[in-house]
Amino acid sequence: MYKVVLLRHGESQWNLENRFTGWTDVDITENGWREACRAGALLRDEGFQFDVAYTSVLKRAIRTCYTALDVLDRMWIPVIKDWHLNERHYGDLQGLNKTETAAKFGEAQVLIWRRAYAIAPNPLAANDPRHPRHDPRYAHLKPNELPATECLKDTVDRVVPFWQTEIAPAVKAGKQVLITAHGNSLRALCQYLDQLSEEDVLKLNIPTARPLVYELDVNLRPIRHYYLGDQAEIAAAMAAVANQGKAKA
Amino acid sequence: MYKVVLLRHGESQWNLENRFTGWTDVDITENGWREACRAGALLRDEGFQFDVAYTSVLKRAIRTCYTALDVLDRMWIPVIKDWHLNERHYGDLQGLNKTETAAKFGEAQVLIWRRAYAIAPNPLAANDPRHPRHDPRYAHLKPNELPATECLKDTVDRVVPFWQTEIAPAVKAGKQVLITAHGNSLRALCQYLDQLSEEDVLKLNIPTARPLVYELDVNLRPIRHYYLGDQAEIAAAMAAVANQGKAKA
Repeated sequence: MYKVVLLRHGESQWNLENRFTGWTDVDITENGWREACRAGALLRDEGFQFDVAYTSVLKRAIRTCYTALDVLDRMWIPVIKDWHLNERHYGDLQGLNKTETAAKFGEAQVLIWRRAYAIAPNPLAANDPRHPRHDPRYAHLKPNELPATECLKDTVDRVVPFWQTEIAPAVKAGKQVLITAHGNSLRALCQYLDQLSEEDVLKLNIPTARPLVYELDVNLRPIRHYYLGDQAEIAAAMAAVANQGKAKA
Repeated sequence: MYKVVLLRHGESQWNLENRFTGWTDVDITENGWREACRAGALLRDEGFQFDVAYTSVLKRAIRTCYTALDVLDRMWIPVIKDWHLNERHYGDLQGLNKTETAAKFGEAQVLIWRRAYAIAPNPLAANDPRHPRHDPRYAHLKPNELPATECLKDTVDRVVPFWQTEIAPAVKAGKQVLITAHGNSLRALCQYLDQLSEEDVLKLNIPTARPLVYELDVNLRPIRHYYLGDQAEIAAAMAAVANQGKAKA
């Protein structure tokens, strides 16, 4: 039996400000850093000794990863940073406040943008400074690989191949793997692992910096999954994620 | 013309306590962290935009690397951690105070242990908990690859092949490279690059967390090298390194 740990980044500045973040490289807050420390301590107390970590190229995930590994005294393991684990690209919603957007366009529309499986927000224009073509961290990618917006399906379509070709072989080789990523890139992975319907994945709300342990069989099919930590507190954190798109916070 | 930046880790707890560190995984101090921040700021102000960083598997180098890259807003670049860049292994001197050791064995003997090119301190016994065979970060290495002590020549013999096979190809491919390592692993690299005699390398004292820029020609032969920052302050820091083995600090 294999174990893989998924970890959403700690609270970011724009989580706090309730803004659509996507590929914007927003940092974690002081509270987010404390969450990451606590995640590391929970993992340490459970005896996890990771051999390799995977994270996105966004600093809120990288710093969460580094912080948890620091607490685990495993700073020395390889940390592989890859854009395939980035948050869903939120198109021209990036930077907007979720509550204000809900007041303006209606909660139903915001829920569609946030959660509809195959409907993406409007794309960023190529000359928009927020477009990833202007960011050196994506300079090695072909123009047609660079999203200007994404629906969750688009995110699934890049996360799952990365799991299959990069992460799954490491797990099968016996490595203990930590994946530090984002609300939607982790939902994409959970959908694939648990074979969730499009409807069910919309209801999935992953709280920040709570270690989510997947136990997998020899074929990497999930046996069960669970969060480490105080279960009531985690349920409250999941409800808070679900409520972010309401007009009144 | 290529540029490569060498960076010794910021002040460590055992730099502060004047103890032989070697492969002991001692962290940097608050002051060492500030040094690393300042190094990052100097590099940022000079316009360095690194594509890849190499560091040892010891946290004082890793944290210095992470901190400088954070200040440079380049947390997203690959950071390759490899034991070949570790500090010289100090054998059974690891943990001893340099001044006390000098008072006990004489300054001349300590200078030999610290600086003689081909004379190593006594090795650690295989059952000594300090021996690297007990450390999971070296579990993938063959027993005969694991040092129980090293002279500087031994360090050169592992650093130079790593430069030749891993780092030099990246430099030649046009990548801007940062190498964050240790007093002796960086001396080993400087000796190779500048073709220093055994005598000259003994006089080389690399201060903590001062960016050392090497400009290299197309064949990676040095054109010149220089430290970024206040030159008088750097000279004082180099003199302090040279004086660490004196009986009276």
